[in-house]
Amino acid sequence: MPWRPDWAYSTALMTKALPPTRHIISINDLSNKEIETIFEVAQGLLQELADRNVHYRIGRSTDLAAKSVLASLFYEPSTRTRLSFESAMLRLGGANITSADPAVSSAAKGESLADTIRVISNYSDIVVIRHPRDGAARLAAEYSQIPVINGGDGSHEHPTQTLCDLFTLRSKKKSLKNMKIAISGDLKGSRTIHSFVYALARFGATIDPLPAPGMELPEHVDRRLREEFHSRIVSKAAGRSEAGGAIDALYVTADQPHQLALIPEPEDYGFIVQKKTDAVYVTRFQKERWAEKERPYPKIDAKFMRDEKYSEASVMHPLPRVNELDVSLDKDRRAIYFQQAAYGVPVRMALISLLLHLHKNKSLQQYPGGFAEPQHPVYVQPIGTGITCGNANCIVCDPAERQYAANKFYIVEDEARQRCKLRCVYCETDINEDAAAHFVMADMTRKIFSFGLTSLARVAAERLRHFVIYRTAAEATAAGFQPRETGKKAHTG
Amino acid sequence: MPWRPDWAYSTALMTKALPPTRHIISINDLSNKEIETIFEVAQGLLQELADRNVHYRIGRSTDLAAKSVLASLFYEPSTRTRLSFESAMLRLGGANITSADPAVSSAAKGESLADTIRVISNYSDIVVIRHPRDGAARLAAEYSQIPVINGGDGSHEHPTQTLCDLFTLRSKKKSLKNMKIAISGDLKGSRTIHSFVYALARFGATIDPLPAPGMELPEHVDRRLREEFHSRIVSKAAGRSEAGGAIDALYVTADQPHQLALIPEPEDYGFIVQKKTDAVYVTRFQKERWAEKERPYPKIDAKFMRDEKYSEASVMHPLPRVNELDVSLDKDRRAIYFQQAAYGVPVRMALISLLLHLHKNKSLQQYPGGFAEPQHPVYVQPIGTGITCGNANCIVCDPAERQYAANKFYIVEDEARQRCKLRCVYCETDINEDAAAHFVMADMTRKIFSFGLTSLARVAAERLRHFVIYRTAAEATAAGFQPRETGKKAHTG
Amino acid sequence: MPWRPDWAYSTALMTKALPPTRHIISINDLSNKEIETIFEVAQGLLQELADRNVHYRIGRSTDLAAKSVLASLFYEPSTRTRLSFESAMLRLGGANITSADPAVSSAAKGESLADTIRVISNYSDIVVIRHPRDGAARLAAEYSQIPVINGGDGSHEHPTQTLCDLFTLRSKKKSLKNMKIAISGDLKGSRTIHSFVYALARFGATIDPLPAPGMELPEHVDRRLREEFHSRIVSKAAGRSEAGGAIDALYVTADQPHQLALIPEPEDYGFIVQKKTDAVYVTRFQKERWAEKERPYPKIDAKFMRDEKYSEASVMHPLPRVNELDVSLDKDRRAIYFQQAAYGVPVRMALISLLLHLHKNKSLQQYPGGFAEPQHPVYVQPIGTGITCGNANCIVCDPAERQYAANKFYIVEDEARQRCKLRCVYCETDINEDAAAHFVMADMTRKIFSFGLTSLARVAAERLRHFVIYRTAAEATAAGFQPRETGKKAHTG
Repeated sequence: MPWRPDWAYSTALMTKALPPTRHIISINDLSNKEIETIFEVAQGLLQELADRNVHYRIGRSTDLAAKSVLASLFYEPSTRTRLSFESAMLRLGGANITSADPAVSSAAKGESLADTIRVISNYSDIVVIRHPRDGAARLAAEYSQIPVINGGDGSHEHPTQTLCDLFTLRSKKKSLKNMKIAISGDLKGSRTIHSFVYALARFGATIDPLPAPGMELPEHVDRRLREEFHSRIVSKAAGRSEAGGAIDALYVTADQPHQLALIPEPEDYGFIVQKKTDAVYVTRFQKERWAEKERPYPKIDAKFMRDEKYSEASVMHPLPRVNELDVSLDKDRRAIYFQQAAYGVPVRMALISLLLHLHKNKSLQQYPGGFAEPQHPVYVQPIGTGITCGNANCIVCDPAERQYAANKFYIVEDEARQRCKLRCVYCETDINEDAAAHFVMADMTRKIFSFGLTSLARVAAERLRHFVIYRTAAEATAAGFQPRETGKKAHTG
Repeated sequence: MPWRPDWAYSTALMTKALPPTRHIISINDLSNKEIETIFEVAQGLLQELADRNVHYRIGRSTDLAAKSVLASLFYEPSTRTRLSFESAMLRLGGANITSADPAVSSAAKGESLADTIRVISNYSDIVVIRHPRDGAARLAAEYSQIPVINGGDGSHEHPTQTLCDLFTLRSKKKSLKNMKIAISGDLKGSRTIHSFVYALARFGATIDPLPAPGMELPEHVDRRLREEFHSRIVSKAAGRSEAGGAIDALYVTADQPHQLALIPEPEDYGFIVQKKTDAVYVTRFQKERWAEKERPYPKIDAKFMRDEKYSEASVMHPLPRVNELDVSLDKDRRAIYFQQAAYGVPVRMALISLLLHLHKNKSLQQYPGGFAEPQHPVYVQPIGTGITCGNANCIVCDPAERQYAANKFYIVEDEARQRCKLRCVYCETDINEDAAAHFVMADMTRKIFSFGLTSLARVAAERLRHFVIYRTAAEATAAGFQPRETGKKAHTG
Repeated sequence: MPWRPDWAYSTALMTKALPPTRHIISINDLSNKEIETIFEVAQGLLQELADRNVHYRIGRSTDLAAKSVLASLFYEPSTRTRLSFESAMLRLGGANITSADPAVSSAAKGESLADTIRVISNYSDIVVIRHPRDGAARLAAEYSQIPVINGGDGSHEHPTQTLCDLFTLRSKKKSLKNMKIAISGDLKGSRTIHSFVYALARFGATIDPLPAPGMELPEHVDRRLREEFHSRIVSKAAGRSEAGGAIDALYVTADQPHQLALIPEPEDYGFIVQKKTDAVYVTRFQKERWAEKERPYPKIDAKFMRDEKYSEASVMHPLPRVNELDVSLDKDRRAIYFQQAAYGVPVRMALISLLLHLHKNKSLQQYPGGFAEPQHPVYVQPIGTGITCGNANCIVCDPAERQYAANKFYIVEDEARQRCKLRCVYCETDINEDAAAHFVMADMTRKIFSFGLTSLARVAAERLRHFVIYRTAAEATAAGFQPRETGKKAHTG
């Protein structure tokens, strides 16, 4: 890739992009093979308990982590995620420190996440963070010297929930390959859903979205499913599901890119539609992400599950539930949501032990440090400079964090490599390709060039490092750059 | 008991009524012998510390619970109860996970207690719960696979506080038998008092209530003391105590039912009144249970304690205190409330270790699993159906919990077995015996029969399982049943 | 000192003034030698980690405290202090119990600190407390049977932060002797600053205050620096620092009293001013201590640090920072604030292990129990009686604590021993020497004598124990004492 920018603005932060420490921010930070490794370790831990016939006492079963401390840093309410992480750490023989209420922490004094994480990473060996802002966990990881696990960041991702979901499905269905999964409810606000559909797509699943009205998958997730995970929409049903949600799409995903040819063409969608559903995954209305406190919302109940196509479908829910999943299903043999919650402990034990390199087994020690090699080149502008992510809830738009977070983007090529787009490194929202953009020469001349963002690939090829990008010429001017004619001006960054 | 209903509506919940796991919800879940066992274990743990001459360092003294995790689930403020449980667990070598603030837990997202406990019971080996609703701990226990300890539920009970109180009294007075105890303050709102008077009655105590005006023992507690614990009121003094509370009653309790004949008749009450008081038990105004923030309230101070009848009376208080117990008593040799707080740790260590079957000693291993055999038959209606507990603060009246909590009652016979009444299984409040009631045939005919609740024993004898009970015919009709004439109608439950 | 009062009003509290248990409330509770011992232990713990080449995994490195429990009792927000104490305890092999939110603790029910600490000291082996009131930690210590560490009390002190600061300076500069330190920001509200300047003075430092406008060192701190720590003001510059703060003073401190003669006289201040600064210590605006939410405030940034006199100055900050320390300095080689935070763990490990007598090494076991012998005699009035500290935020002025806190003062002599003043034992604020005062005979006659407070030394010599002191004759009368003429009257204390 000759056009990869060579980081004219490289700072200490840049070296952080590939730290020796492994962080789990997105489910896509883990390869399929690594996910399988986590599951094997989790299965081993469960087996150990079963062998000892420990029925009701899950207790502390190993001392693998006897010398380690986990920090829970929760800026949003949680019972399940925090306590299952802390229980997992205790069962590994480790210990916890907890900051569970932002109102009684240094955040109440106005401290930035970047400062907090640099301090906390001196007090513990691994940290799990939950935050209301999309991309917060990624920013934290950039400033952390210890592994950061994303325990949920805004509407972005919740990768360990997805690990639990997949582990539960795998236990039930024996394999993760080629499943058909219906997802119901607030597909827009639920970070759990986002991590889940990426993972499903990677394992070749057919995804059948049953969104609540107006709560479809976000456009950037939808596009990513299609463009990068090679999911194809095979259905655009006009009707409405029995649960009241419109069926907008049915994604069929190629297990491997080379299997693309095997995917049925849209005209074959009848086959896909008729395939029995392996699981119905239900999520609550994420009221904390919406202005309205009430919205029409589908309810999954015994009647819904009476449909023949769900006759063998496991019913899943990340919990907590409110009203969207009827209590009457609790006794249904297909209900596995409490098992799903229970698996939170062994799966998180496995993840922590691998990230801390606690296993003696050589193959598990080789569980690699460092992020996965990024799939896309990264374009970083100096902090306070250039085009900013358009997602108002992104961590880079938080006034307290702006001085620590560069405007930083993956440069994502489309399939045919004819054009590129910018994807925020933190929240993974794409900048609208059609947005007008203006490139400012970063050298002494500081000239403003006007190109569309879609011409990025071409510009990149001409050495992107020479440019700072702005949405409009006015923004560039406001930032202290002069129009091309005048040429010179002090940079206020 | 041929008339015991055979549970036509038995559901999965019913099997939960006798789980293999032991829960401590009420002090009455423990037999006198079991209470003595707890105290022997606690005494042993204290002795161990004394032998090692560990003066100020209480520390962690055993590793009995090295493999176990205690979950603290607190929906109401606490320092003492939560920290003493957590300290007890640490001193047993165990570990804790804590959810201490409902505002930062999943409850903030609208999760029910029933769901929460099912999840938490996968993360830990034993759970202590505090909740503002009466009966909440019982409901939690029904959904829990691990032992649930009631750390205080509304105005209902606080059994581990009572264990600490009894242990303190026993240490001071050598025996729990036949004591005379004055109880002062908010006898209505204080769950601590309720657990305490039941236990005192069971050990044959004379109880001398000194309530704040309008804060007498709840009627259902008073009646239960007299009808089931065979306490007799020997005094109905017209005057007012020096502390300002009216002396309404002096309960004298038979140590064993066969000792009833030994209890002095009312005309002998002079003897009882003159007996010196062994302890004055003071409680604060439970402002969180009352609409008013201020009320006239008795204050126990040096002057009050100067009364000759209190010359040997220990002064007790479950703490925290506000103004009802004067600071000047802190240095009085009779003040044992800080010792009472200190004993919270060894007593709770003993309880936890017994519930988790951690002792090698065979007789302690036999500390039985399962609830004590219920003293009364249980009548359960299908969830959402039938007569509801009349206590508005009962957990079954909580909208979020209603779908998980059946209207479930003990059928309590009166002494002469001539009539019965219904007692809520959760909050133990009785349904007013004189309430009109209507019994609906639960079979196909669904006819409404009108009987008074007092005829319950007769109805029960005729197989109660055929009936759902409603307070009024109108309620039965509103629930979808038709008057006797019309006969058939769809059941909307 | 023949005039030392012999404690006519001595109560149980008085014996608490010299408990066998060591508390760390003020940095002045530690001698310079003891501070050095803490640092040697901390250095040893760090070395141990380095030897084992444990790079990113700080973990739990010893089991010194395996049998001990630390209680964190935080009445104010904290992340850093609480988590670093808890991490320190875990790394020593110990365990923690935590009450981090006053809203969910017994304080919400109106419990006093004195009661809370008496209970908590039964649950743990050592306690760290943070409280919004000045002097709260000292009051807590008086009621505690286990060591109390002050984690910050109002605007008073924060001694463990100072230990971390000194340890960091010592690591960087090799010695604590004779440094020149600039302190910038809210010198009035920052307890961190107050502990820090006392310690600096004791190690012979020159202190260069750069206060925000109106946020100078409190007068009682300033006077104490001059009168007791023998600091001399050598500069009263009229100008303003580049950071916007007025330079009001430059304190030069004698390392040892006998070195007083070596201190340059004011006319030599040019030398002092020109000496290069060893560190610039920056603090945030303590908005929780001020009515206004915004104030003009100096910002330390790259431009400020470009001054030649700061060319070798370390930049320190106790964190959290808001805007007063520019992010651009993070990469400056002189920035050591994150290192400062990291040292919080080993320093606190050392302190805890010494206070709990956990070391086998004999010289470390000799780390003495008991407070340092108080430097000044203590004058205690019966609780509820006599002159009260004039600092409205002092713990003795808290209505909930008044019944537990005596009006208790150090009698501080001035250098020439010609007169004395009263200094509150809790918050260490002095009573204005010029305040009129009235001394009431505490014997049967209860006569009121009028002396000025400055005549205290003379009165003391005449046996202070015979007197209760009031600010005005009216106050004495209001408290139930009669003017000299009438003579007799019941004492209402």
